[in-house]
Amino acid sequence: MTIDNISQAKVCGGWHKQYTHQSQSLNGVARFAIFLPPNASKATPVPVLYWLSGLTCTDENFMQKAGALRKAAELGIAIVAPDTSPRGEGVADDDNYDLGQGAGFYLNATQKPWAQHYQMYDYITAELPKIIEEHFPVTSVKSISGHSMGGHGAITIGLKNSSNYRSISAFSPISNPMGCPWGQKAFSAYLGSDVESWKQYDSSELLKQAKSELPILVDQGDADGFLTEQLKPEALIEAAKVHASPVEVRMQPGYDHSYYFISSFIDEHLAFHAKHLA
Amino acid sequence: MTIDNISQAKVCGGWHKQYTHQSQSLNGVARFAIFLPPNASKATPVPVLYWLSGLTCTDENFMQKAGALRKAAELGIAIVAPDTSPRGEGVADDDNYDLGQGAGFYLNATQKPWAQHYQMYDYITAELPKIIEEHFPVTSVKSISGHSMGGHGAITIGLKNSSNYRSISAFSPISNPMGCPWGQKAFSAYLGSDVESWKQYDSSELLKQAKSELPILVDQGDADGFLTEQLKPEALIEAAKVHASPVEVRMQPGYDHSYYFISSFIDEHLAFHAKHLA
Repeated sequence: MTIDNISQAKVCGGWHKQYTHQSQSLNGVARFAIFLPPNASKATPVPVLYWLSGLTCTDENFMQKAGALRKAAELGIAIVAPDTSPRGEGVADDDNYDLGQGAGFYLNATQKPWAQHYQMYDYITAELPKIIEEHFPVTSVKSISGHSMGGHGAITIGLKNSSNYRSISAFSPISNPMGCPWGQKAFSAYLGSDVESWKQYDSSELLKQAKSELPILVDQGDADGFLTEQLKPEALIEAAKVHASPVEVRMQPGYDHSYYFISSFIDEHLAFHAKHLA
Repeated sequence: MTIDNISQAKVCGGWHKQYTHQSQSLNGVARFAIFLPPNASKATPVPVLYWLSGLTCTDENFMQKAGALRKAAELGIAIVAPDTSPRGEGVADDDNYDLGQGAGFYLNATQKPWAQHYQMYDYITAELPKIIEEHFPVTSVKSISGHSMGGHGAITIGLKNSSNYRSISAFSPISNPMGCPWGQKAFSAYLGSDVESWKQYDSSELLKQAKSELPILVDQGDADGFLTEQLKPEALIEAAKVHASPVEVRMQPGYDHSYYFISSFIDEHLAFHAKHLA
């Protein structure tokens, strides 16, 4: 499996690099970014945090705006940021920002015209880690985090593959997509009208069933304009009570939905993951 | 003098806010961003670091990409980031990125059609600080920093107004604009063909004349694609020898011209300024 390096920049003693490659899952060209801390080498491979971004984002938003790389360099953690959907001229799309390209929702689509390329769940859980572990000085020890749609992705993927990840965190996740407009629109399009099939990609539904003890840290700003209609952390908090799951949801007063919020707490998330990745 | 708040986001316990206002110097609407650390209040006003950005940037690039706000919050320093030129439909422009809007070069233009709006030197040295000190809980104690074209701006403005600033720093500054294509093109357009008049805006020329003891810190990546043709730190190093000026130029191995470079060393620049702002 070959990958093509399209950019590199030294940062905080480590390296930020972008790659493209032919993706089998996505049936086309995919792009991702990786941060390698200064201590990453074949002799001393490092663990990986996968970061899943939100609606409209690419692999670039987190790397440029989160201010995460200094702490990741200190802690010796690699970070991998994939794109948020398949892309390209032949890939189905929608005129709105919350469906189609930039809005893959980290699931495997079953409906036309989406199913041909929109297989982000398989890409994130299987294909991408295989590529990362083959090409870079990293171990197979990993955690997962994300923002908004990517927070939904991190929690669902972490819960469904709890033996593959050490810890999960999220900023402002879409906590109950079955119960909000963004999720209902996307799940209807990608998964069809059988609401029962949606439960496999709903963080709150999955948490009710979860038997794992995977630690989960969630930060949510209480001045987030999407809080009430789209994000619904209360559903996650309720679901966590069913089996007394180790979920900490922190409401952060005054913070909104932006990367300014993420940058304020990302160091704490990295420290949380570092503890579990050690 | 009224200013209009157009955005605000809580970050690192403080606030990032953007404002527009009618600028007398620029003869039109100007925009700036300010970061206020958590401890800034009328009772405990804080010093200000002015940040000048490079070609094509607005007030947003530094605030979003430098990863500076955590350390500024810790140190109790406000940061003000103006736009890099006058803007708008009635403002003269050029098809290229290195002249006109987004490329004001922090000088007062004397030539048509630029002189009507391109008075960034007056804006940065006089009008903007007056607005900031009138509207925000800050002191008149200030330092100045910038990147590339903004590094040129920070050094020239700091040296020409050494009693108004406590310290100067720059990343990858255009150190000798009279001797490089970017500078020669901009100075010809904005200042005309009299090369003698260019010296008032050339960091290396000004440093040769400087009698101040203002401390200057410069970081320059040695993998910067603009290093040899455009940036010329060697001119600055030579000029610093004339009066043994307190200039430290650090070549940083492997770093390029991007915000990944800035984010790697911004904490050290903030600590440098904090020492002199105290």
